[in-house]
Amino acid sequence: MTAKFIVIEGLEGAGKSTAIQQVIDALAAHGIENPESTREPGGTPLAEQMRALIKEGHPDEPLTDMAELLLLYAARIQLVDNIIKPALAEGRWVVGDRHDMSSQAYQGGGRGFDKALMENLRDTVLGDFCPDLTIYMDIDPILGLERARGRGELDRIEKMNVDFFHRARARFLELSENNPKVIIIDAGQSLENVTSDLKQALNHWLEKQ
Amino acid sequence: MTAKFIVIEGLEGAGKSTAIQQVIDALAAHGIENPESTREPGGTPLAEQMRALIKEGHPDEPLTDMAELLLLYAARIQLVDNIIKPALAEGRWVVGDRHDMSSQAYQGGGRGFDKALMENLRDTVLGDFCPDLTIYMDIDPILGLERARGRGELDRIEKMNVDFFHRARARFLELSENNPKVIIIDAGQSLENVTSDLKQALNHWLEKQ
Repeated sequence: MTAKFIVIEGLEGAGKSTAIQQVIDALAAHGIENPESTREPGGTPLAEQMRALIKEGHPDEPLTDMAELLLLYAARIQLVDNIIKPALAEGRWVVGDRHDMSSQAYQGGGRGFDKALMENLRDTVLGDFCPDLTIYMDIDPILGLERARGRGELDRIEKMNVDFFHRARARFLELSENNPKVIIIDAGQSLENVTSDLKQALNHWLEKQ
Repeated sequence: MTAKFIVIEGLEGAGKSTAIQQVIDALAAHGIENPESTREPGGTPLAEQMRALIKEGHPDEPLTDMAELLLLYAARIQLVDNIIKPALAEGRWVVGDRHDMSSQAYQGGGRGFDKALMENLRDTVLGDFCPDLTIYMDIDPILGLERARGRGELDRIEKMNVDFFHRARARFLELSENNPKVIIIDAGQSLENVTSDLKQALNHWLEKQ
């Protein structure tokens, strides 16, 4: 079984962290130990510096939507070229907290960048590199934001209006539905049911590999 | 006379700083005081942070060519949207130390990024925004590097091999020749002749505006 790249995607408050731990546990149960864990944007020293530019508020100088988009891709290619591809080449599995689908959803769906522009930029930067499996944790934005608020201060991106997140969710769903490389989990259920659905889908996928 | 965006381009050691001062003096002689001065990459607080990521050495993590290219464009759009366009809209002239032609030359010509990719990225990020006049200071890379070395330590990009600069120069020339918006100055001449050529070409251009 060659090493694979599994990504967990979803809005804030969708339970990505719990899902990531479940993926790591499921991999261990299949004898796959110590996968590389990544998060985006970030995951390398340079990419984390780019993340800081994206996430920090800049009261004196707005970060333009286009600069944000380019920084996201700059951080992504640092991570892909310096961490993800080398790990896979060495036979290590990679479990990612977000990847390209987040940009398609937040910048494409949320900020309204043209779909052709988004696809073109992805192809230009990443070529045909893509996750072997994406687990999309689907949640209503209101419920997700309430859950996220319960665990602390929202950052700049989280503070944007809820319509933004509705547009992002719509794009997440559009990219996930009828996509054989994506598992959609209903993350609005009880934790018990989310866990159970994810475990079942993941084991089913792992057994096919 | 509406405000214009004038850019000075050229390899290291081509005498850009002297040329910029000459442009500012020539504008003043035509009654155009206090133009906005920019430098790229950089020119805004955020863009300067991106510049630092590009210019600093990163011994533990290579900055990939693609990440460098995306950072250059992220810095550029910050500068264009937050400084250059607002200045022009207020009727202030802008004098730029490098702009997009440097990316076309160094990343396209020097690093070898595909020409279609470079044009596509420029169009995606900048649309149809471009300088009203570019002054390209043409110099042989060996002579330019010798002059640059005379004034201090070379940075990471300057240290790359000379072939890189020959490819960059070829692309600069390709973009400048037969381009009505570009003045080519032979920067390999004596300072006196460079100054004289530039003054004449610039005054001729300014009188047509």
